[in-house]
Amino acid sequence: MRTAPTSVVEVRGLGPRSTEDVLAVEAPLELRVRAGGEERSLCITMRTPGDDAELAAGFLFTEGLVHARAEIGGISAEGERVIVELLGRPLPETAARPFAVTSACGVCGKGQLEELRATPAGRPGPGPRLHPELVHRLPGALRAAQATFDTTGGLHAAGLFDAGGERLLVREDVGRHNAVDKLIGARFLAGQLPATDTVLVVSGRASFELVQKALMARIPVLAAVGAPSTLAVSLAAEGGMTLLGFVRDRRFNVYCGRERVELND
Amino acid sequence: MRTAPTSVVEVRGLGPRSTEDVLAVEAPLELRVRAGGEERSLCITMRTPGDDAELAAGFLFTEGLVHARAEIGGISAEGERVIVELLGRPLPETAARPFAVTSACGVCGKGQLEELRATPAGRPGPGPRLHPELVHRLPGALRAAQATFDTTGGLHAAGLFDAGGERLLVREDVGRHNAVDKLIGARFLAGQLPATDTVLVVSGRASFELVQKALMARIPVLAAVGAPSTLAVSLAAEGGMTLLGFVRDRRFNVYCGRERVELND
Repeated sequence: MRTAPTSVVEVRGLGPRSTEDVLAVEAPLELRVRAGGEERSLCITMRTPGDDAELAAGFLFTEGLVHARAEIGGISAEGERVIVELLGRPLPETAARPFAVTSACGVCGKGQLEELRATPAGRPGPGPRLHPELVHRLPGALRAAQATFDTTGGLHAAGLFDAGGERLLVREDVGRHNAVDKLIGARFLAGQLPATDTVLVVSGRASFELVQKALMARIPVLAAVGAPSTLAVSLAAEGGMTLLGFVRDRRFNVYCGRERVELND
Repeated sequence: MRTAPTSVVEVRGLGPRSTEDVLAVEAPLELRVRAGGEERSLCITMRTPGDDAELAAGFLFTEGLVHARAEIGGISAEGERVIVELLGRPLPETAARPFAVTSACGVCGKGQLEELRATPAGRPGPGPRLHPELVHRLPGALRAAQATFDTTGGLHAAGLFDAGGERLLVREDVGRHNAVDKLIGARFLAGQLPATDTVLVVSGRASFELVQKALMARIPVLAAVGAPSTLAVSLAAEGGMTLLGFVRDRRFNVYCGRERVELND
């Protein structure tokens, strides 16, 4: 259940009116890992229910805790708990004690500043070369695929598009990093990573954590409807990624990696 | 430094143009605590620099790790590190190992679902009774005080208002929970908690974590420009708080605690 109806008093100007509203569901999910006969809690995240196995796989992959599909034996998701069976290895060290992650959190379990950056297996590669008209169409195409946003106004969306602007996959969540983890997790479980010839479109702002996750999947272009932060730009530039911001209303900014945008200059 | 200039290629329609943009700064901050001659790292948060001592104090208070101003001996903030001296107690247990918190994360260090809710010292109390006209003016008043948003588009704001709609305090951050922690931390350090007759206005959505933080400060009304989640509404209702959402364009929704809004019905 991703949305839930609620009774609400709507006030327009001065006039109150009892009506129904639809809310985005936010609920805790405990991520547990099992390896070598041991099991323990890794973290608790606030997320919108649905695609929990993908979320778990995507989180483990983008955090650098697993690297290949074959490292995961099975995933059982039930209610507020998902258990991931890791093959041929001990429990990951970062699971030494559980910790909570909120609906907007993505990078956890690192105690040192230098550990904040997980290391991708390689750089994104050349990737697509995008015509501005294609870029202008991305937010509308993401929005058209959003199952829930229009009814709640409370969900972030992440969409993966191919080099021709065709939509491959869309995921939604109250946490933007969760939407990206679900999307990357789906590709990971399908054996479709790295996603070297794709564009990741996000409905909100571009932060450090989103760039980090996209780099782990070796996605060459991140297009955000909102603003990027300084750290998002510097990490994208270092990682060889193209970062586009404020992609809306037929305009956008290219913050780095302009070689992947067809510009007449 | 809360904002930073950057060179950017702006594309409008098909035309590229080199120009300057201003970014919101996102940078890591390590929060360390010291007690009884010991010191250790508690967490790393991605935040916008500025008000780091307030951020640290607000985080410790809203997470339930300190309860009164007198428990803090001193705070030294320098660069990417802030150290809080705790008085008359051992190091808090949740500091058993450090963990990272991203720019959008707020509730950390809890390993069990039931631990996600910190316990406030009391309920918010009756609080103000707000005329709809006063509510309609809140987002504009917050926006007018936002030093940075207009230049970057990348910062969340949190503002505290009194019962008459007068602005008391505004804080900004790339993470919405950080903006709230800075604001509550400022009040905490000034000995001005609980904030029992105030309204907290946030520029984005209302999540579990924001309601949790407001309840810790016993703020009776939370008004969000964006949508609330299911868990935000249920936690606010249980805690005896008034939660307003979609407060913009002269309308808003009352999700719970309608006794604090003057409605003619």
